[in-house]
This record gives sequence, C-alpha cells and structure tokens, in this order.
Amino acid sequence: MKKQFIDQIKPGDTLMDMFALSGKNMLKKKDGNSYLDIMLSDRTGSLKGVVWDNVDQISAAGALRDIVRVEGVVSEYRGNLQAVIKAMKPAASNEIDPGDFVPKTDKDIGAMFARLQKIISSIQTSHFKKLLEAFFTDEAFVSGFTAAPAAKKMHHAYIGGLLEHTLSMAILIEKTGKHYGGIDGDLLLTGAVLHDIGKIEEFQWSSFIDYSDKGRLLNHIVIGCAMIDEKIKEVKDFPEKAALVLKHLIVSHHGSRAFGSPEPPKTLEAVLLNAIDDMDAKMNGIREFIMQQDPDESWTPYHRLLERHFYIGK
Amino acid sequence: MKKQFIDQIKPGDTLMDMFALSGKNMLKKKDGNSYLDIMLSDRTGSLKGVVWDNVDQISAAGALRDIVRVEGVVSEYRGNLQAVIKAMKPAASNEIDPGDFVPKTDKDIGAMFARLQKIISSIQTSHFKKLLEAFFTDEAFVSGFTAAPAAKKMHHAYIGGLLEHTLSMAILIEKTGKHYGGIDGDLLLTGAVLHDIGKIEEFQWSSFIDYSDKGRLLNHIVIGCAMIDEKIKEVKDFPEKAALVLKHLIVSHHGSRAFGSPEPPKTLEAVLLNAIDDMDAKMNGIREFIMQQDPDESWTPYHRLLERHFYIGK
Amino acid sequence: MKKQFIDQIKPGDTLMDMFALSGKNMLKKKDGNSYLDIMLSDRTGSLKGVVWDNVDQISAAGALRDIVRVEGVVSEYRGNLQAVIKAMKPAASNEIDPGDFVPKTDKDIGAMFARLQKIISSIQTSHFKKLLEAFFTDEAFVSGFTAAPAAKKMHHAYIGGLLEHTLSMAILIEKTGKHYGGIDGDLLLTGAVLHDIGKIEEFQWSSFIDYSDKGRLLNHIVIGCAMIDEKIKEVKDFPEKAALVLKHLIVSHHGSRAFGSPEPPKTLEAVLLNAIDDMDAKMNGIREFIMQQDPDESWTPYHRLLERHFYIGK
Amino acid sequence: MKKQFIDQIKPGDTLMDMFALSGKNMLKKKDGNSYLDIMLSDRTGSLKGVVWDNVDQISAAGALRDIVRVEGVVSEYRGNLQAVIKAMKPAASNEIDPGDFVPKTDKDIGAMFARLQKIISSIQTSHFKKLLEAFFTDEAFVSGFTAAPAAKKMHHAYIGGLLEHTLSMAILIEKTGKHYGGIDGDLLLTGAVLHDIGKIEEFQWSSFIDYSDKGRLLNHIVIGCAMIDEKIKEVKDFPEKAALVLKHLIVSHHGSRAFGSPEPPKTLEAVLLNAIDDMDAKMNGIREFIMQQDPDESWTPYHRLLERHFYIGK
Amino acid sequence: MKKQFIDQIKPGDTLMDMFALSGKNMLKKKDGNSYLDIMLSDRTGSLKGVVWDNVDQISAAGALRDIVRVEGVVSEYRGNLQAVIKAMKPAASNEIDPGDFVPKTDKDIGAMFARLQKIISSIQTSHFKKLLEAFFTDEAFVSGFTAAPAAKKMHHAYIGGLLEHTLSMAILIEKTGKHYGGIDGDLLLTGAVLHDIGKIEEFQWSSFIDYSDKGRLLNHIVIGCAMIDEKIKEVKDFPEKAALVLKHLIVSHHGSRAFGSPEPPKTLEAVLLNAIDDMDAKMNGIREFIMQQDPDESWTPYHRLLERHFYIGK
Amino acid sequence: MKKQFIDQIKPGDTLMDMFALSGKNMLKKKDGNSYLDIMLSDRTGSLKGVVWDNVDQISAAGALRDIVRVEGVVSEYRGNLQAVIKAMKPAASNEIDPGDFVPKTDKDIGAMFARLQKIISSIQTSHFKKLLEAFFTDEAFVSGFTAAPAAKKMHHAYIGGLLEHTLSMAILIEKTGKHYGGIDGDLLLTGAVLHDIGKIEEFQWSSFIDYSDKGRLLNHIVIGCAMIDEKIKEVKDFPEKAALVLKHLIVSHHGSRAFGSPEPPKTLEAVLLNAIDDMDAKMNGIREFIMQQDPDESWTPYHRLLERHFYIGK
Repeated sequence: MKKQFIDQIKPGDTLMDMFALSGKNMLKKKDGNSYLDIMLSDRTGSLKGVVWDNVDQISAAGALRDIVRVEGVVSEYRGNLQAVIKAMKPAASNEIDPGDFVPKTDKDIGAMFARLQKIISSIQTSHFKKLLEAFFTDEAFVSGFTAAPAAKKMHHAYIGGLLEHTLSMAILIEKTGKHYGGIDGDLLLTGAVLHDIGKIEEFQWSSFIDYSDKGRLLNHIVIGCAMIDEKIKEVKDFPEKAALVLKHLIVSHHGSRAFGSPEPPKTLEAVLLNAIDDMDAKMNGIREFIMQQDPDESWTPYHRLLERHFYIGK
Repeated sequence: MKKQFIDQIKPGDTLMDMFALSGKNMLKKKDGNSYLDIMLSDRTGSLKGVVWDNVDQISAAGALRDIVRVEGVVSEYRGNLQAVIKAMKPAASNEIDPGDFVPKTDKDIGAMFARLQKIISSIQTSHFKKLLEAFFTDEAFVSGFTAAPAAKKMHHAYIGGLLEHTLSMAILIEKTGKHYGGIDGDLLLTGAVLHDIGKIEEFQWSSFIDYSDKGRLLNHIVIGCAMIDEKIKEVKDFPEKAALVLKHLIVSHHGSRAFGSPEPPKTLEAVLLNAIDDMDAKMNGIREFIMQQDPDESWTPYHRLLERHFYIGK
Repeated sequence: MKKQFIDQIKPGDTLMDMFALSGKNMLKKKDGNSYLDIMLSDRTGSLKGVVWDNVDQISAAGALRDIVRVEGVVSEYRGNLQAVIKAMKPAASNEIDPGDFVPKTDKDIGAMFARLQKIISSIQTSHFKKLLEAFFTDEAFVSGFTAAPAAKKMHHAYIGGLLEHTLSMAILIEKTGKHYGGIDGDLLLTGAVLHDIGKIEEFQWSSFIDYSDKGRLLNHIVIGCAMIDEKIKEVKDFPEKAALVLKHLIVSHHGSRAFGSPEPPKTLEAVLLNAIDDMDAKMNGIREFIMQQDPDESWTPYHRLLERHFYIGK
Repeated sequence: MKKQFIDQIKPGDTLMDMFALSGKNMLKKKDGNSYLDIMLSDRTGSLKGVVWDNVDQISAAGALRDIVRVEGVVSEYRGNLQAVIKAMKPAASNEIDPGDFVPKTDKDIGAMFARLQKIISSIQTSHFKKLLEAFFTDEAFVSGFTAAPAAKKMHHAYIGGLLEHTLSMAILIEKTGKHYGGIDGDLLLTGAVLHDIGKIEEFQWSSFIDYSDKGRLLNHIVIGCAMIDEKIKEVKDFPEKAALVLKHLIVSHHGSRAFGSPEPPKTLEAVLLNAIDDMDAKMNGIREFIMQQDPDESWTPYHRLLERHFYIGK
Repeated sequence: MKKQFIDQIKPGDTLMDMFALSGKNMLKKKDGNSYLDIMLSDRTGSLKGVVWDNVDQISAAGALRDIVRVEGVVSEYRGNLQAVIKAMKPAASNEIDPGDFVPKTDKDIGAMFARLQKIISSIQTSHFKKLLEAFFTDEAFVSGFTAAPAAKKMHHAYIGGLLEHTLSMAILIEKTGKHYGGIDGDLLLTGAVLHDIGKIEEFQWSSFIDYSDKGRLLNHIVIGCAMIDEKIKEVKDFPEKAALVLKHLIVSHHGSRAFGSPEPPKTLEAVLLNAIDDMDAKMNGIREFIMQQDPDESWTPYHRLLERHFYIGK
Repeated sequence: MKKQFIDQIKPGDTLMDMFALSGKNMLKKKDGNSYLDIMLSDRTGSLKGVVWDNVDQISAAGALRDIVRVEGVVSEYRGNLQAVIKAMKPAASNEIDPGDFVPKTDKDIGAMFARLQKIISSIQTSHFKKLLEAFFTDEAFVSGFTAAPAAKKMHHAYIGGLLEHTLSMAILIEKTGKHYGGIDGDLLLTGAVLHDIGKIEEFQWSSFIDYSDKGRLLNHIVIGCAMIDEKIKEVKDFPEKAALVLKHLIVSHHGSRAFGSPEPPKTLEAVLLNAIDDMDAKMNGIREFIMQQDPDESWTPYHRLLERHFYIGK
C-alpha cells in the first residue's frame, strides 16, 4: 500500500514508494553519456526525477504511464524539488490501488449510474430510447462512461467525473425540462446524456489524467459524433432528421466557435443544453476551487483562468 | 379605438388614426422656413412623417411621447414609407388604449405577481424577508415592477416583461435551488427578485419602449444598487455584510465587464444568478424570434446579433 | 431556354421566364386572407415576389428549390424591386439548363479531375492510396465531388468550385511538397484532397447555392470526418495512427477555434495544409472580387468582410 | 523604530523587527497537527513565513493586518525566501510608524489639499459648490480622501495617491478647461474631484494596500455613486438633471465596458474627463516605472501589463 | 456661382449646376452598348448619375475629380436618388469656388498658422528649431500643410483640418507642457507639429476629400517618416538619436498596433503625444457630431463607429 | 577557445571562460556602497551574476555587449543560478569565435546567397533589376543581409536567418509564381527579397541577438521603407507607381494592423507575399521547436505563444 504522497515530500526525504511514471526522456550529457529525466505522479501532485547511474537498466524497468516502485533522495534544484533516482522496478499489480494515483469522485458511482438510468427511463421517443439502450448495454462503453473524468483540470477532474457531471445535468433537466415551451424533452435529455461521451476516448486515466493522442488530435466533439454514428447503426430505422438534431447538440454544446464548437446552438434544445452544461461546469469547478481554500480566509487566491478572487467569507 | 396599424400601411394610404409621437425635430429649409420631421409609432412599428404646412400649429399639438391623432397621406421617399402630415391633434385620453401602442406580455400580470409573492414567502432570513416586504408594500414600486419591460429589443421586450423574466428565474431557483451545495438560497432568491429592478427607471414605456435619460446615463445596475440602498434604510439593522453580498449580485449579474458588470461574479450565488439570468434571457429571446417566423420554413432569417439562422423545421 | 436574367430587370418590366424558387412563405393579411411571399433566383441574383390572387393554386405549382416558370409585373416597393406574380407553373425539365440558375466554374471539370487523379497517382503509401481509390471509385462521391461549390459566397462559390480549389492545392503541394523537411508528403496530399469533402453534403446547389440542413447543423468538418470513417472501413487494416493524423488534417484545417476548427494544427502537415488552404481561398476570392470591377478604376469598392479597398490600377 | 526591511533580507538572516501581518492561514500537517502559514509585509515587499511550534500561542498574537513584532530565521525553500517564525507579539502602537509599512506620496499632502481647495473655489454653479462643500466639511471624508491610494499597483499606488491624482487632473482642467467649446467647466471640475472617491472605500491601507471586501464586491464606481447620492441629500434642491450628468461622469470615467464602466462617456464632459484621467494615470504609472530603473540603462525591463520596454536612454 | 446643393435635391428636380465628378465607370448593357455610371459630389453630399445617350461625348467632357457642369433630371431608382444626365461639360475655372465642393474650417487659416508659428518660436533646441524652419520655409509644404484635412470623416474632415488639429495640440502642449516632469518639451512640441504631416500626401482634396493612392498603399505614418528623413538631410549634423526619438513620435502616435502604429509609445513624450492626439480627435469629432443635431432633442442619433447615442439635452 | 557553456553549468561550478556581457547595472546597497548586477550569455543561454568586491575596477573591464573573460563561483539564489564574479577582463579579440556566442544557421551562407542571386537573375523588369543590383553591389548591405537573424526568438533566430528565410520564400515563389494569374512576378520576387531588410538595422547580434534602439523605436517595416527610398534614388527614373506598389509590399507584409502592418495587403502580390511569409515563418519556427524535443516522446511540451502541444510521435 502506498504511504508516501508527493504533496508531503520535502528536501532531504528518502523516496521509497510507488508512483505513476508520468514523464520519461532519455537525454544526452555533454560527455556523450545518457541520463534519464523522469516525472513521477500520484493523486496529490508531480515530482521531477533524474537518473544518473544505471540508466539503461532503470529505463528498462518502466514505460511511460506504468506504476513503478522507486528509490531515491529528494533535494532542491533550481528552486524545485527533484529526486535523484537510485532504483526503479515495476510495481506488483496486486499492490496497486488506482485510487492512490488518480483522484476519484467522492460520490457513489453505482448509485449515480442507477439514478441516471432511472431518469433516462422517462424517455418515450422510441428511437432515442433504443439508442441509449444500445449504449448502456455495451459493457465497454458503460465501463468507460462510469470511470472517465470530465476534464483534466477545470471541473469534475477525477474518476467518475463524467458520470457525475452528466447526472447533474440530467437532474436539472428532469426538474426544469417543462419550464420552457417548445422543447423536445426526450431529445434534450438524450443529448445531455451523450453530449460528453467523446471524453471517454479524449482522456486516458490509467495512472494519471491526461489527454489521449486521439483527444488532442480530434477533440471530444468529433469523437462523440463518431460514437453516435456507430451506435445509430444498431438502431433500426433511426430517423435521419432525429440523428441530425441529436448530433447538433454534441456539435454545438460549447456554445460558440471560440469555445470549440464548429457550429453554435441553432435549436432551442441546443441553446438550453449549452446553458445547462456551462452552468454545471462553472458551479462544480468554482465550488471545488473555493472548498480547497482555508475556510478562515475571506478570499480565495487569484484564479488565473477566471481572472478573479472568489469570496469565501461569511 | 385605433384601427390603423403601421405594419399594414402601404404607399397611397390615407393616414387617419392615433399614433405615439416617438420623434420630433424642427428643421430649416434652405429658404429659411421651418418644417417638422416626426416619427410615429404603435405596437407594430414606426413610420416617418414630415410637416410642410402649418408647421408651428401642428408642432404645438403634441410633444414627444404624446399620443396624437394625425391626418396625412403616405408615399414612398428614398425607398422608405413617409407620411406627409396635414393635421395633428392630441388624442382624447379616454379613447387611448395603451395596449395599442406598446406590446404587452400575453400572460396574466396579476397571476404572475401572485405566484412570485408565493415563492418569495419561502424566504426565512429575516433581513431579506423584510427588505422584500419594504419593496412590495411600496405601491409605486409595485406599479413599476409589474409594468416595466425587461429590454428594448432582445428579450421580454414588452409591458410586464420584467415581471415575467423575474418570475421565470424565481421558479427555476425554486426548482433547482438545492441542487448545488454551498448556496444561500434566501440570498439567491432575493437577488433574483431584485437583480433587474433598475430597469423600472432605465426604461420608459408610456407610449413606446425606450431608454430613459437616466437609463442611458447611469445603467440599470447602478440604478438598482441605489434603489436597494434606499430600501435597506427602511429595514432596521440590516446586516452590512448581507447588503454587500446582495448588492454584489446586482453588480455582477451580467457576468463580465464586457457585458457591463463592473465586477464579475465572485460568490457561488452570483455565479449561479448570472447563469440563470443568461439562460432565461436567451431562451425567451430566441423562442420569441423563432415563433415570429413562418412555421413552414425550416430556418429563421439571419439573426444579426446572435449571428446565425435558427432551425425551425421539425 | 431562359432569356430573362435578374440583373437586367427594371421596374415596369413584364416577368415571363424560368427562375429558381429560392424562398416561399404563406402569410396572412389583416383581413384573414392569405398571400404568398416568394423569392426568385437565377445565376445573376435574386428578386422578391408577392402573390395576391389565386394564392393556393399558385402555391401548389412549385415547392422551395423548384425551377418554375412565372408571369408577373415588376415594380418598386419600399426601395427594392418586387414582382407581383400572376401565374406560376413547373418548368419542363427538358427546357431547364442548370447553368442558368447556378454559376459554374469556367474551367473544364473533366480536365481538372484528370489532373487531380494524375497527381494523386504519385502517392506510394498503400493505405492512403487505397483510401483515395475507395473514394474515387464511388460514383456518387465523384459526382458530388466534381459538382459541389467550395463556398456560398467568399471563394470558389460556383459549381465545380470544390474540385477547382482542391486541385489548386494539390498542384501547390506537388510543386512545393519537398520544400520543407520532416513532412509526410503522402499524408499531406491525401489530406489536401479530402480536407473539404464534407462540403459535398454541407451545401445543396440544385437550383441555387445554399447550406443544407445538415451543413448548418453539423459543419463540413464533422461531416468530412464521418465520411472518412465510413470509407476507411473499406480499406483492410488501415493503420489506426494514420487514421488519426489524417482526420486531424480535416479537424484542424481552419487553423484555430475562432475559425471553426475544434483543434488547431498540431502536426507539420496540418500547419502546412492550413497555410495552403488559407492562401488558396484568399487568392481565389480576392482575385474574383477584383476581376468583377471596372478595370478603368484604380480601386475596388469597399470589401466589407476583408475591410478594405483593393488596388486595381496599374 | 523599524530597521529591517524586506528587500534587504537574505537567506541566513535573523528576523527581528516589526512587519504587517498580510496573510495568515492555519493548516494541518499529515500527522494531524496544525501549523501556521503567514505572510509578512512592509513598504518594500513581502516575505513568506511558517510557524511549526507554539502555533496556537503565536497565532493568538496577531490578526490579519496587525503590525506584529516577529523573531525568526530566514532560509530558502523551493526557490523562495521563507522565515521560520519562533516568536510573534503585537507591536506597541507608539513604536509604529505607518510610513514604514505602506508607501506614501513624496509630495506634501497639506499643500496638495490646499491647492485643490483653491482650484475648487473657482466653481460658480451653486449646487456643485454646495455639494463639494458638503464633502469637504465632512472630516471623515477628508481624512479618507487625503490618505487613500489611487490603486493597488499601477499608478499612484501609495498613501496620498488619490489626492495627488485628483489634484493633477484638477490642474490640467484649470489650464485647459476653456480650450474646447461646449463644455460646462463647473460640472467637469466637480466630476474630476469626485470621480474616484469610491476608492476611499474600495481600498484599505491600514498596514498594506489592498482591496477591501466592499471594493472587490462592488467596485469604486458603484461605491462612488452611492457616496454622491448620500451627500446630494444634504444639498437643498439639488437639480435632478445635474445629479444625473454628474453621476454619469463617475459611471463612465473608465471609458468603456471593457475597462469597467457600465456605460461609456455620452457627454462632452464625460469624454474629456475620461481622456484626462487616462492620460494622468498612464503618465504617472509609466514615469514611476521608468524612474525605478537604472538610469545608465537604455531600456527598462519588460512591462508585462503594457507589453513593452520603455526607452530611458537619452 | 454654384446654387444647387445636393442635400436640397428632390426627385423631379432639374439638375443644372457644377459638381465634382467623384466617380466614373463605363459599363456595358446586355445589348452590347455602353452606358456611363457616375457620381457627383459637392460639399453637402453625393448623388448617383447615369448617362444613357451620347455616352462617349459626355464621357470625354470630364475626368474623375474634375469639376463639371451637368444637366439632367433627378428621379428615384431602387430607393435612392439618381440623375439621368443629358449633358456635361467642363466648368470654367474662373467660376469655380473650391469651397463649394469641399468643406472648409470655419476658422481663419492665416491666423491659425501665425499662432502656430508663435508657439513654435519657443523651441530652443537648435536641431528641432532648424528642422521646423526647413519645413516652414518650404512653400509647397506650407501650402499643403495649411490646406490638408485631418481625416476623411471622423474629425477635422475639412480643408484646414490638419492645421486646426495641429494647432489645437500645440496649444494644449503650451499650456500643460510643464505639468509632467521628465518631458523634453521641445521634442514633444516638434513631434506634435509634425505627427500628422503624412496626411498632406495621404489625402487629396482637389474636388472632394478622399485617400490618395499613396495614402491607401503606404499610410500617413510611413509617409510622414519619409518626409522627415528628407528634411533632416537639410539640417547640418542633426543628431542621430534625436532623429530616432522624433520619428518614434510619428511611428507610435496612434498608440497601439490595433490602431495602426507599428510600435506603441515607448517614451514619455510618445505616451503624452498619443494621449493628447487621441483626446483632441475625439473632442473635435464628437463635438461636430453633436452640433449637427437638432438642439431641441435630448439625444443624438446612434453613432455607429462609437456605438452610442450622445446626450445633448441640458 | 571557449569551453564552458551556460547550459552545462551547475551550482558549485567554478566559472572561468568568455561570455557576452548582455546586462550590466550598477546598484546601491542599503549601506550606500555599490554593487554590480550583470548578465552573461553565450549561444546556449544566459546566467545572472553579481559583483560585491572590486566593483569599480571590474565594471571598468567591460561595457554592455563586450565579450569578457570572467572568473567566479556559481551558486543558487532564490531558485535560480547566480554567479558571484571575482574577476573580469576583456577577451582578446583573436581568441573570440563569434559562433560561440550567437547561434548560426547550419546552412552554407555563401551557397544560399549564390542561389538567391540566381533566382533574382530571372527578373526582367528593368527598374526592379536595377534596384536589386543597387542593393547587392552595396557591400555594407550584403554584409548585413547575409548575417542578420530574422527574429529574436520565434523563427530563423540565428546568424544567417534573414538570408535563409528570404531564400526559402524566393524558392517558393520561383516554384509557384505562375500558379495564380494576375500576378506581377517580378514585383512579387523583388518584394520578397526586400520585405525584411529593415531587420538588418532592427537587430544587433554582435555578441547576442537583441533589438537595436532603432528597431524598438521604429520597427523594421518603417526602417525597410526608408532603405528602399534611399536606394531608389540610385536608380535613374524609377517609376513612381512601381515604388508605391513595391513599398506597399513591405508596409503590408504582416497582414493586418494587429500584427504590425500600418495597412493590410491591398494588391494580389501583397496578399500572396503575406501568405508565403507567414507560412515560411510558421513552418521554420514550429519545425525547430519540434526538433529540439526528445524524439521518443509523442508530444512536445506546451508552446506558450502558439498555445498548444505539437505531435511528434509517428
């Protein structure tokens, strides 16, 4: 069991535990010899490491994204912590608790999934009902859907984050779906459930949360549309127009080109889905940010991306 | 009773009915004589007019924003309709139906107001409860609040629009208020009810909807804060901190400086209020826009401000 | 054969020829009766029309996008030309020359296609070669590819425009492909040939060039990726990584999110493809714009989108 | 008297002097025990500190913003200076010289205030004259007005900065006020004197310059308007229109929404006030920035906010 | 003497007077014959004209920018006034009053020039003094400098506008030049006098104000620098560094790249010159705009470029 | 010969070699004594240094931009390397290899120059031919042109970079020049060769690459136009119009005001030159960036300016 976490490590500490190998570069010294530059991670942060001796042997002990057991000494170099690594070997898979390496939702994944299924069961439109069944009877899909994070950093950036975010939106739609006239509730709910499924392939979270190659090259909007295209084939006579307006929800859910949607929302359902998605992402992200701070302070530190301090003090 | 509406008028028509005098300029011809350039409006649109004869007499018959009875002939000048006005006199107040001049919500104002009061009655926090009472026992305020439009054009741009928009937000908060943890529901609801009250003074809608001088010079955010400052004095021992976070909801409800808020949302309640306000304004505005179009068309005309066509066709 | 073209029509003319029915709205007059508001187009422009009499009968004579034969009288209304339509019937298909309704490239489509095939034949990489074969042995695809316009307005906005633009880029790549090191020339050329194929479905040009519903809701980037996904299935063992970097060329070819690409170019091939695409679109669009002007003038009129006058005078 | 200033402190130094307690967070170590994370400031900079022992006792010795006397040892941690604090106690108020903690204008505050009063005495318009009297006979106001900084960082960021900036603008108006026709000079001067008074409450500078809660939540534009509303009540029959155009100067003085003004300048006086304010802030800020640099260098270091180097060398 | 001005012309009027030929295009009708499309201007506006008969003869009677005497009839075409031209001949130069065609400052050009010379005479720095002498003893330069407009539209858009704008800035600098320390007053004043001289070549105003080819292709900033380069050669031993900082004032006087300056202001003099230039342009432009409106109205019409209404009503 | 390079230096190392003196500031300690703050550079990076003793003597040993021989000890201060300098003396010019201090193209400068001359020799237009001859028979010009870098950082940031970039563009134009109709190929090629010559004076690279004073104050666009103005005088009867369109290529080659061009491209040649310049700069800069990374990694680190990771992995 892992006992040493990166956010507790100080200069002078001896390193002796499991970490995710989140970076690995073989570099050359002036004298022609190689050395290894690595990055170690766990759910609390990252730590730079260097290997000066036994370079080839140590390099062979782990590939990028492996969980490895390392020994070394921590010092400070140019103002940052750095570990000189003496030994590295693969961690035994039976001693690995993935939860030590990647943060996870503090909500019950099974319960969240059950609640989402219950909300989905209200859908009457036959083709949407069948499409969601096609997805949720696909074990590989369900396994990814319940595990994927919803982001690398900003909001729901943990295992189960995609499910948590999707469920939160589904609940909001359940409660307010009839508030505005002219809305096709079944279309809206189906779109909400599927709007971010491209993130299952956009991210990888085996040992740390990061974009996959596919995610960086194609974006979850394009990936999600392709996933829907595939599943629609399994539904007999899925109406072409319904496929268009459903995929439009995925294409437009970021709200504008500036935020990555090739087309902006052009139906009432798309306008509403974008508004609810944006609201839910902001509320989760800002709340998490506020809750990490000292509750005795009146203000959070400066939030670089949102360019402001938030007010805690009440 | 008014029978002639501007959107039905064609070149060659004789003009003979009541209109709002929405523009009035005394100009000089080259020969030194004056002529009068006017604008006539009703709830269906606007029409340019000119007075060549009896200028002083006709000019004396009506001030800007009066409802006047005019006689004239409609022709086309430089590609637009234009009426040459022969006679003008004040309309008798007993024959004026304000609904002929300014568009009005198609919902029941009394019922909307009652429902809003019912939602407000859930507020437990004493100082917010008393503050809202101070507003809603002020007859002049209630009269403005239930009549004001929420905008000149984009959304809820009709008599009763402010109330309709406010109620819509209050209902959304009633339904979803407990969805996110860490929210002070009473603060949020009070903020939602008061967030746009500055519009009561920002607009004038006696004979057509337009900004008031005060609205153009100060903006409803600044006006609204001043209105709250005044009413807070009527509540004994209103806590200073509660006044700050409440006024912050008004100051920040447009979401960013670019949209006119001197400060962006810095509390969870402010983030949520901005999201709900934005969603409600967009949904109302876009839905109205779509509903004005030919239902047999697949697409609306281009929406200049939102820079897209919307999809109707289903 | 069509003889009357819209850019030659003046007030007072009698209308009696074939036009594309590019707009059609049934509206209601105040008296409760219906009238028909239509738009007529040919390759030289558009003309508004109204039908006051025999409305139902005339409306039944043509659906949106049909080529119809109309009779009417042209006048001026509110500063624009307007035709009062007296009669309308379907045009006989044997008298329709599509070239009268939609502008067409002045280059030889067959010759352009042959030249593109010749350039493509230089591709050595087996999977890209096979993929392009799969596309170019698909008759329906070829038919669309050689006919589609590349835009509604800005550049190559005519029948054959997609092919002309694609060929131009292929020639540029043929000539300069080896100029920069580190480029996979086969990938680049394959990407250039396929980068805009989504436009085959994004546009419709049966009787006038316009976006299709699919185009407005999904965008040609998303459509193009789906088309490639489909065709890749026909190529045995198409390498997954090659599919990723190829589709990345489609995803990123607009250069940035602001211009509609969900991801910006992240490979050298993608950076180069975007640069060549942008250069070719600008050169074609600006040259066409300059060539439409009076050659005796020194400057073009103001180009609203590019926000400048261009210099002709030499 | 304070002798040790932060910009002179080096690793290895013993800390033994008075500092402003500008940050204070009680945090938990892994072992469950608490430690204290603090920030110490004086007019020359800030220094991070930690308390490992006697945590509760030391924490009780000072609240945020107190001036405290500390003992400790300075070392380097993760590339920054850090003091391990051994002891802390309140500073005796009689040994505190506020000037040691907050930077102060190098001009004479009394003389500046007298000169401003002299310029103001030229105002003839009775209601503006009385309004300024109401402000300047209010001791609490005068005390704040002559002490407040005009900013946290960019320009006039020191005690007396608000007065210095206001006086500079008043002098410019005195000299150039009659340069442009159509200007109400009394309105302009009154607006200039009051345009930034909201900063008296927007900032706090007891022991270091920072935004107050009120400042961050409401912004000095909203605060300033409220201050004027209050004082106007003390002036009998203050004309409503004059109040509007005066408050418009405050509302619009940042020039555009992007810079925090809910409305842009809409009167000639507002346009001119914004121009003079902007000019004076830039000239003061850039001049201070240049004067802090080595006069033997040709160029200043890069100015991050203004995104350029400035040229010194002459 | 010209008696007919364009802003007084109505449909049905007979055209018979002198106008500037501000546009001229020979176009082809479908039948292969040519017609002439022209634009006529005077200081009050522009009027479109067409020539159907005697095309070659009429075309030969005037070149672009000539003042011509025309005969014709005014009607309305597609919502705009249009004159059918029957005859055209060159105006006799002795009957042309340039002031009828191009608007002119209402101030005395001689008096303005004298006052500017007086202010300049305060300059002590020998090389700047000599440089200005070199300019102001160059008759061609003086003739252009005292006649050129400062803009096509926005501000000082009339004969003498460059001088008026330059003088206004010089007066402001005379009055406030010593307000800020660290300023080289002679450099600043020289820069102010020369900052816009490129406009002498950027514009042409022989018969209407428009950009010259040189102006559109090179911009007055680049032209102005070249003019200074030329004149500096006439001053013996002009110090190189002084030339650099002087030309920097021209290069940077628009304040930022977004406004057309290749480099932003990097000296205190450049920062101040940009601020004063911007203030003077805005004050002149907005004041002119307000003064053109009906003084009985409270608000101007919407100013498209500045995106607001201005408040007149006092 | 220099043996010690900055990217190899570690805390604890003894410094004893030649470096460029790239920064030098005399500062004052609290005790009134001076110390010297310096920056040392070579082609691999920069290193901060301080001089505590013998300050005046050491300061006298080298001026900014000199190559000096220093002795000192390297330690770490506030997270960065810092050398305490014990001795400094001028380097003997015979032991200086400029290539040790400023990076240089890895291509053969003589061969590149010859190839450029060959391409230029295709120019037929007499005045452009003569203008280029005037430049390339000017030894001082050729010496600068073949040595100057094309940028400080982003692309071609090394000795010979301007030539390499110019040649690359000339080759692209040679290969594709006839691809688009309506292009004056001789104008385009002349413009390409001269578009960046202002960089010869914009940069200085005697001991490290940096902007010159002239470059920062005037920008290479303004400098380049002046250089052309000078040389054109040496060509008899250079046509004025040709000078305009040629200089327009220099003025507009950055494509828009936002990127530093006072006017955007307004001729086809200018549009094409801007496209090719932009493409070549991007391709060189991104390729260099990718090639500096570990080839075993799939992705480069984040590119701050271009805001993305680039994909290496194939």
